[in-house]
Amino acid sequence: MTSSVTRYLLRIEYDGGPFVGWQRQDDQESVQGCLEDAAEKLNGSPVDVFGAGRTDAGVHATGQAAHINVRSDIPARKIADALNFHLRPAPIAVLAAEPVHPEFHSRFAATKRHYRYRIVSRRADLALDVGRVWRVPVKLNVEAMAKAASYLIGRHDFSTFRDAQCQAKSPVRTLDHLSIEGDSETISVTCSALSFLHRQVRSIVGSLVEVGRGQQTPEWMGEILAARDRKACGPVAPAAGLYLEQVDYPEVALKEGIHHAEN
Amino acid sequence: MTSSVTRYLLRIEYDGGPFVGWQRQDDQESVQGCLEDAAEKLNGSPVDVFGAGRTDAGVHATGQAAHINVRSDIPARKIADALNFHLRPAPIAVLAAEPVHPEFHSRFAATKRHYRYRIVSRRADLALDVGRVWRVPVKLNVEAMAKAASYLIGRHDFSTFRDAQCQAKSPVRTLDHLSIEGDSETISVTCSALSFLHRQVRSIVGSLVEVGRGQQTPEWMGEILAARDRKACGPVAPAAGLYLEQVDYPEVALKEGIHHAEN
Repeated sequence: MTSSVTRYLLRIEYDGGPFVGWQRQDDQESVQGCLEDAAEKLNGSPVDVFGAGRTDAGVHATGQAAHINVRSDIPARKIADALNFHLRPAPIAVLAAEPVHPEFHSRFAATKRHYRYRIVSRRADLALDVGRVWRVPVKLNVEAMAKAASYLIGRHDFSTFRDAQCQAKSPVRTLDHLSIEGDSETISVTCSALSFLHRQVRSIVGSLVEVGRGQQTPEWMGEILAARDRKACGPVAPAAGLYLEQVDYPEVALKEGIHHAEN
Repeated sequence: MTSSVTRYLLRIEYDGGPFVGWQRQDDQESVQGCLEDAAEKLNGSPVDVFGAGRTDAGVHATGQAAHINVRSDIPARKIADALNFHLRPAPIAVLAAEPVHPEFHSRFAATKRHYRYRIVSRRADLALDVGRVWRVPVKLNVEAMAKAASYLIGRHDFSTFRDAQCQAKSPVRTLDHLSIEGDSETISVTCSALSFLHRQVRSIVGSLVEVGRGQQTPEWMGEILAARDRKACGPVAPAAGLYLEQVDYPEVALKEGIHHAEN
């Protein structure tokens, strides 16, 4: 017996705290695993969930993207509500489900990924944002951080900011956007690229904070980038402050299944 | 044996979720109780903590104010850190501790209290802001809410927006500020007054949301205010979206202990 399926692009929010990360693992709770279990309950048979990117343990998302195939006789307007029903009480929410071309692929069609890293600079413990931001107990120099960030924008060999476990073939990436917003107490680092190396954002943020604390000069950022050596990197920022905010797709990918080649 | 004491104004953040509210109770965890226990550990003998206002169970604060007396031989710069140390792991943080006049009183000297109410309008469950905002599953008309709010600004008899348990002598209050910010998905209601009636903010927000949902017209807000009748009020908004953001004091209160009379 065969039945026709429809492919959906999902936009997903999650609290990364309780999970081993995005990727399904046999013995521990993952975001992908929870979504696959919920999609199976909706579909009546197993469903693979393909994500635009694998977030690490503790990393959050306000706009992760993924695609799934589900039985075509399930109305499109019910997909998100039904997934959310089956996901409870896991802290994962499907914000939207959009029917897309049968050959659309959430990972290969993505043209840009946008991350935000949230920092709070204060001495007092966090009462409300525990697990949601990185608390740095000293004042940070936002201007120095912005100057340091300017060395990283563009196409570079990011070996310094790449985790030893990274499986990417090349350490070269193009950072389209990297900016520091906020005052000396509440800081957001936003960055965007076609794709990132493993732990690249947290490695960059950890090094930016070294500059913000006055431990290093802004020029040091240019030097460690040029070193192309993991040992030159500052301490990696904790997972709890990082959010995958958005994944961009061109209309041709959504409607015609045509994919960007570089991904 | 006597020893001299110094009075401090504390600025306090807390997650109201796990507490029965601000006010100390014998058998359940309260914010005041946790602060008094921490202050006793710091001081070596019991300390009363006097708050600027009593928040209900589940209501949060990013800027509650309170005053305490502690032994004068404890250095001022150590007060906040030591309280935070003794408060762990309760989700309460002392953001600042400032020495004030011995007759300063956090409740009677306050000239304005500022609250924020956070609403998210969306169908999907909350993954990241559980217990932090009120999720309303329909789109809200922010313009209609702003028009409705305009009826409440100024000096009025707020009997309609006053909990049956309210112990204030008069139902008359002056609402200095009430505004609706944000788009149709993320909405903040901010309001400021010298003082509020019990559940006044949540009663106002619940009624504003009736207007935002299109269940009532903006003019209805003027009608229920004029009714001066608790039964005319809309459903009371849940505690989880409410934040006490700031309490204002004049310099004469901090430095000379001179108090505002109306409070």
